[in-house]
Amino acid sequence: MSVDPRHPPGALTDEELTSLDAHWRAANYLAVGQIYLMANPLLTEPLRPEHIKPRLLGHWGTSPGLNLVHTHLNRAVKARDLDALCIWGPGHGGPAVLANAWLEGSYSETYPDITRDTQGMTRLFKQFSFPGGVPSHVAPETPGSIHEGGELGYSLSHAYGAALDNPGLVVACVIGDGEAETGPLAASWHSNKFLDPEHDGAVLPILHLNGYKIANPTVLARIPEDELDALLRGYGHEPLHVTGDDPATVHRAMAHALDTALDRIAERGRPPMIVLRTPKGWTGPAEVDGLPVEGTWRAHQVPLAAVRDNPDHLRQLEQWLRSYRPEDLFDENGGPKPHVLACVPEGKRRLGATPHANGGLLLRSLPLPPLERFAVPVDKPGATLHEPTRILGELLEDVMRATADRRDFRIVGPDETESNRLQAVYAATGKAWQAAILDVDEHLDRHGRVMEILSEHTCQGWLEGYLLTGRHGLFSCYEAFAHIVDSMVNQHIKWLRVTRRLPWRAPIASLNYLLTSHVWRQDHNGFSHQDPGFVDHILNKSPEVVRVYFPPDANTLLSVADHALRSRDYVNVIVAGKQPSYDWLSMEQAKAHCARGAGIWEWAGTEDSTRDPDVVLACAGDVPTLEVLAAAQLLRRHLPRLAVRVVNVVDIARLMPSDEHPHGMSDYEYDGLFTTDRPVIFAYHGYPWLIHRLAYRRDGHPHLHVRGYKEIGTTTTPFDMVVRNDLDRYRLVMDVIDRVPGLAVRAAPVRQRMEDARLRHHAWIREHGTDLPEVADWSWDG
Amino acid sequence: MSVDPRHPPGALTDEELTSLDAHWRAANYLAVGQIYLMANPLLTEPLRPEHIKPRLLGHWGTSPGLNLVHTHLNRAVKARDLDALCIWGPGHGGPAVLANAWLEGSYSETYPDITRDTQGMTRLFKQFSFPGGVPSHVAPETPGSIHEGGELGYSLSHAYGAALDNPGLVVACVIGDGEAETGPLAASWHSNKFLDPEHDGAVLPILHLNGYKIANPTVLARIPEDELDALLRGYGHEPLHVTGDDPATVHRAMAHALDTALDRIAERGRPPMIVLRTPKGWTGPAEVDGLPVEGTWRAHQVPLAAVRDNPDHLRQLEQWLRSYRPEDLFDENGGPKPHVLACVPEGKRRLGATPHANGGLLLRSLPLPPLERFAVPVDKPGATLHEPTRILGELLEDVMRATADRRDFRIVGPDETESNRLQAVYAATGKAWQAAILDVDEHLDRHGRVMEILSEHTCQGWLEGYLLTGRHGLFSCYEAFAHIVDSMVNQHIKWLRVTRRLPWRAPIASLNYLLTSHVWRQDHNGFSHQDPGFVDHILNKSPEVVRVYFPPDANTLLSVADHALRSRDYVNVIVAGKQPSYDWLSMEQAKAHCARGAGIWEWAGTEDSTRDPDVVLACAGDVPTLEVLAAAQLLRRHLPRLAVRVVNVVDIARLMPSDEHPHGMSDYEYDGLFTTDRPVIFAYHGYPWLIHRLAYRRDGHPHLHVRGYKEIGTTTTPFDMVVRNDLDRYRLVMDVIDRVPGLAVRAAPVRQRMEDARLRHHAWIREHGTDLPEVADWSWDG
Repeated sequence: MSVDPRHPPGALTDEELTSLDAHWRAANYLAVGQIYLMANPLLTEPLRPEHIKPRLLGHWGTSPGLNLVHTHLNRAVKARDLDALCIWGPGHGGPAVLANAWLEGSYSETYPDITRDTQGMTRLFKQFSFPGGVPSHVAPETPGSIHEGGELGYSLSHAYGAALDNPGLVVACVIGDGEAETGPLAASWHSNKFLDPEHDGAVLPILHLNGYKIANPTVLARIPEDELDALLRGYGHEPLHVTGDDPATVHRAMAHALDTALDRIAERGRPPMIVLRTPKGWTGPAEVDGLPVEGTWRAHQVPLAAVRDNPDHLRQLEQWLRSYRPEDLFDENGGPKPHVLACVPEGKRRLGATPHANGGLLLRSLPLPPLERFAVPVDKPGATLHEPTRILGELLEDVMRATADRRDFRIVGPDETESNRLQAVYAATGKAWQAAILDVDEHLDRHGRVMEILSEHTCQGWLEGYLLTGRHGLFSCYEAFAHIVDSMVNQHIKWLRVTRRLPWRAPIASLNYLLTSHVWRQDHNGFSHQDPGFVDHILNKSPEVVRVYFPPDANTLLSVADHALRSRDYVNVIVAGKQPSYDWLSMEQAKAHCARGAGIWEWAGTEDSTRDPDVVLACAGDVPTLEVLAAAQLLRRHLPRLAVRVVNVVDIARLMPSDEHPHGMSDYEYDGLFTTDRPVIFAYHGYPWLIHRLAYRRDGHPHLHVRGYKEIGTTTTPFDMVVRNDLDRYRLVMDVIDRVPGLAVRAAPVRQRMEDARLRHHAWIREHGTDLPEVADWSWDG
Repeated sequence: MSVDPRHPPGALTDEELTSLDAHWRAANYLAVGQIYLMANPLLTEPLRPEHIKPRLLGHWGTSPGLNLVHTHLNRAVKARDLDALCIWGPGHGGPAVLANAWLEGSYSETYPDITRDTQGMTRLFKQFSFPGGVPSHVAPETPGSIHEGGELGYSLSHAYGAALDNPGLVVACVIGDGEAETGPLAASWHSNKFLDPEHDGAVLPILHLNGYKIANPTVLARIPEDELDALLRGYGHEPLHVTGDDPATVHRAMAHALDTALDRIAERGRPPMIVLRTPKGWTGPAEVDGLPVEGTWRAHQVPLAAVRDNPDHLRQLEQWLRSYRPEDLFDENGGPKPHVLACVPEGKRRLGATPHANGGLLLRSLPLPPLERFAVPVDKPGATLHEPTRILGELLEDVMRATADRRDFRIVGPDETESNRLQAVYAATGKAWQAAILDVDEHLDRHGRVMEILSEHTCQGWLEGYLLTGRHGLFSCYEAFAHIVDSMVNQHIKWLRVTRRLPWRAPIASLNYLLTSHVWRQDHNGFSHQDPGFVDHILNKSPEVVRVYFPPDANTLLSVADHALRSRDYVNVIVAGKQPSYDWLSMEQAKAHCARGAGIWEWAGTEDSTRDPDVVLACAGDVPTLEVLAAAQLLRRHLPRLAVRVVNVVDIARLMPSDEHPHGMSDYEYDGLFTTDRPVIFAYHGYPWLIHRLAYRRDGHPHLHVRGYKEIGTTTTPFDMVVRNDLDRYRLVMDVIDRVPGLAVRAAPVRQRMEDARLRHHAWIREHGTDLPEVADWSWDG
């Protein structure tokens, strides 16, 4: 439907209109003030160059539209006593949201030095885009926000994540027409097929078409209106169009559209949305230096750029500011006058004060069961095989059951929960799905808490929104394709790093990745699915936030997952296999090993306690651990007098210096594990140079030799993959022989035997397409 | 419009129908054969377990639909003598496209050992998903393909990239309903607003709804049909619906839809597209072990999983294979019979033989002008300031002019060409735009060759498609947001690595990134826009493909860009500033310096030729270079007897060992530049540990001390950013004093002075919001 702005809907009284417009003008005034002023905030004297900031950094264009939405949301929240949250998507929306938070008082409650008076207004203005102050974007520092408006694309998936399991909550989401061009945003429109009317809240998208990005028109603002309308209906929405540039008319139309939308949400009809079409930089200078500005791309940033030097610009700025009639809006102390605040709700209903935007306040610990109930019995290492992720699935099933009423735990993934062997969870809950269901479908569930869509971006956005509003979750993903969300997780890590320094932000549950279907087991997918570099990406980010684990078997996976699910304010990356693999540690041993993060597996080595070993075989990751143990076994058989130590690393950050990562080992600990002078052959799951980057400061680093994935891959068997990348048991034995002083001659026949085994492998696989029987049937004999 | 399958459109004769169906059956037979068989390919004897592959890896579900599309495209191409290319989007589509290429003969021409006879068919079957053979996806090894069907999301943007500047070309693009859920695919629908009817070809999307992903229904297959139709109209298309499961009916409907679509394309009407709705695993087993398979998610992979062990499964497989009547399709030598090939076009018209899919064959060298015409005059270092990317823009303008008729060069970017200071190009061409144009718009151009959309994914996809079909281009992007395409560029690098080993694939133009608006200059965007890690990501990939450059000034940027634009089969990443910065090198010096990739700047240091320097100050990146030169100047003033060497690194891979990267230096060269025993203070643009990861094998590594971005950022000035990250001139001088033996006591007063300067900075910026005058007004006095 179209809300015709020519017909006043009658719902808005003149008094309401006056108050709404006053609030909107006040917010606009404060937005302009933040961009330009560092003194004389109320224009109590004529504007002079020294009142203007030395560096004009900021963006006016999007502010009046956001101010309009905030003003009208205020009214609706107050009138309906709504539980509401708003996601502010547009870039550089900072001035608007800050202005509104200051007006409603939530800003001063959060930041007591920014008082709701003249002094506070001055500080509010000065801090904006000022060194060490607040950025131009809506950011972690912004009260009422769970969404950074810097990198665009994630507003709508964040909104849906916030709405999940929050019945009664309305999440408004302002989507800029720039952001609407991004892939992640385009995909997330279909999130409405996953929203459970019974257990979830509602999302109200507000597509704000102000027509321009930085220097270009936007696609959605320039396609024919019937095409846009069809598109939004195609997304499953009932669009309500609000278009105009006359404030009173738009106020009436917007109020009517919002009332209509909220009525529909209450009736659970086809989900409404609003298309708000207003000029970019609305109410700003119509023309500057003879060129049109308001309503054009020229209004994107600072419309009057030379205010300090150009008296015309200065005069225009003063006119612009005075056009909002500040004397009508603020009292002599600089506080907003009562009629400005007539539409503003109270207490936690204020958009800047909702606890949903500070989710840690609402967070409850997950009811995690004792791990012993799911542990794999291990009497001796390597005697049994299990699929680690399948065992984890049983733990997750229990968590799903335990949260059936609380509904604060979800699993997301791009159609891979079952493929990743977590299907036990389906005994406790199904896959969220509100579209058609056929007889042949399995595990689809109108109320399910597993979320699957073939969009890593949408999965990530949902989970982020869910966590940021105080709940728990897990993202299960193919290892290689975690890179799809590299940039999203960047932003989430940056968010956490900043919020950890904000005392008013309560800690939230960590974002937990389970990366499986990993580089070494892509038997039919081949090269395109082989990339272990997400870990490298993560480890570039703030050490206080990032944690990376390589559990080598089922019980260590349980221990690590338990730890991750209990943790707060981290991004935990767990890399684990889904294929049957040997169980090395009992649950008790696994807990102790994971608590240390790295340790000697005495049972696997041949050293005695009287002296340092001749060589250290280190490993991180399930497949490298298998190859290291097989190499240790070969060494025990062929070179029985060699003192071999086997070290397994679960928590890869342990390798870092203790002053670079909270989990980093002291040199004393590191040297105790790896020695300072013995060769260390390190078999690592990913790119080998990562280990060097973590350990380069250690005394023993010159003796560290790392094997890992060298970006050599194809469609082939697991063992062929390790052979191609020189990570196989035979190569590791050769490495030992090559690096232990004095062994080269004595062990030459053994080395030849290893070479021969590799050649035998190549011949066998060409012929049979399978691995050598001695490899396929290998077992630990220790 | 809807093509009603009940009304035979009359266009297809019975003979054509018979031939189309025979071709489709043959392709289906060959697809099943690839998944299961390694002997007895023509079923000349009853099927026995030993004919079956030991590991059944492959995906049947998508194959019959792809085979249908290929069969019908063949007919249309032949009937209309079309110049056509097809992008095969669906995952695991390998068996289908390989089957078709083998049928049409292009496969045997590309791989002469896979002949079009019984022996060749056996090899075709065996290699599929076999160790070292071909993957389940359409891949670089697949003739006729420019698109890997592994990671999903990029088919449609690739199709548009291929169509640009290829008038007369029709690019069909099969989009799976799984892929359609991804963000990059969802964004790329709007590419039709950028296609110039005069200079570009046409794209025909074929959305294939087989209903299921791995284990789930797909969103687009389960929303109401009118909603789907509205969505596609909203994307600007005229959808033609083909639905059915009766082969003859679907053949008639598909032929009619394709004819209608191609007629519309010829008439340049509203762009058509086809929605093809057929069962997943169509013509496969209807039921296995009592459960429905055909038309369900169970048909996704290998429908009969236990063929070697379960006689029922074996019998069912044989029935299934024989249902295609192979004796009617293949002659006694195993070649396809004539009626099977009646619809197949000839020569380069075959989809597996089009030169557009082997773009290097069509590639012409770019007409690059002499750099001297654009060079900045440099009589002495540091005397003038220029914006490097603005200078590069002038070179690009010339390239745009020189290719005005050839139309084989494009610039893509997410609405940042002007923001990145490349606007000179607008004097030569505008921004491609086919939607509405208003008076206020600038540089929009129906025929423009600059492509801007706020989707890094779409930009990347367009450029990849353009390069893969034999043209040239540049992607200009904010440094931090290059991470958005991490996973896409992974796939492109993998593609190049594989194609470099395929003798039949001709080299294509490199994919060139200009990363600007970088980490050190985010004065108002702040922390969310600060990430220099794309380079780390790139350097994890195949060294033969990746190149990374940090030109320190305008002339070096020209030299590096010239090199990148001339190169082939690389991914070049150029990190360069857009802000005014000092010119250090003349054009001649810049060329020599860039050719070496790293070198001593004698004019900047204080060493004499008689002995090794006391310390090496190294730098990579424009801001680090500035700080290093300022530090060198401070050292010259305060510690004049210290022998300082300044080394600048442009080509960061030069630091790697020569056996790890083609650009890597020998130890001899490295030691000559950096010494083996003197302290090296390295100021690097990005994360400091990258330099350690590149240089850890060098003898001098224990003396290497790197400063860089430590993920500490906020909204602040450029100099405050380097201070916060300990990369500033004062800190570098302190590092020198701390690390040069014997200097600690003697230079203690100088060190204190540096400390004081940092404190002065902190106080000044808090007060003024700007940088210290001594920093703002700094200039090189050498």
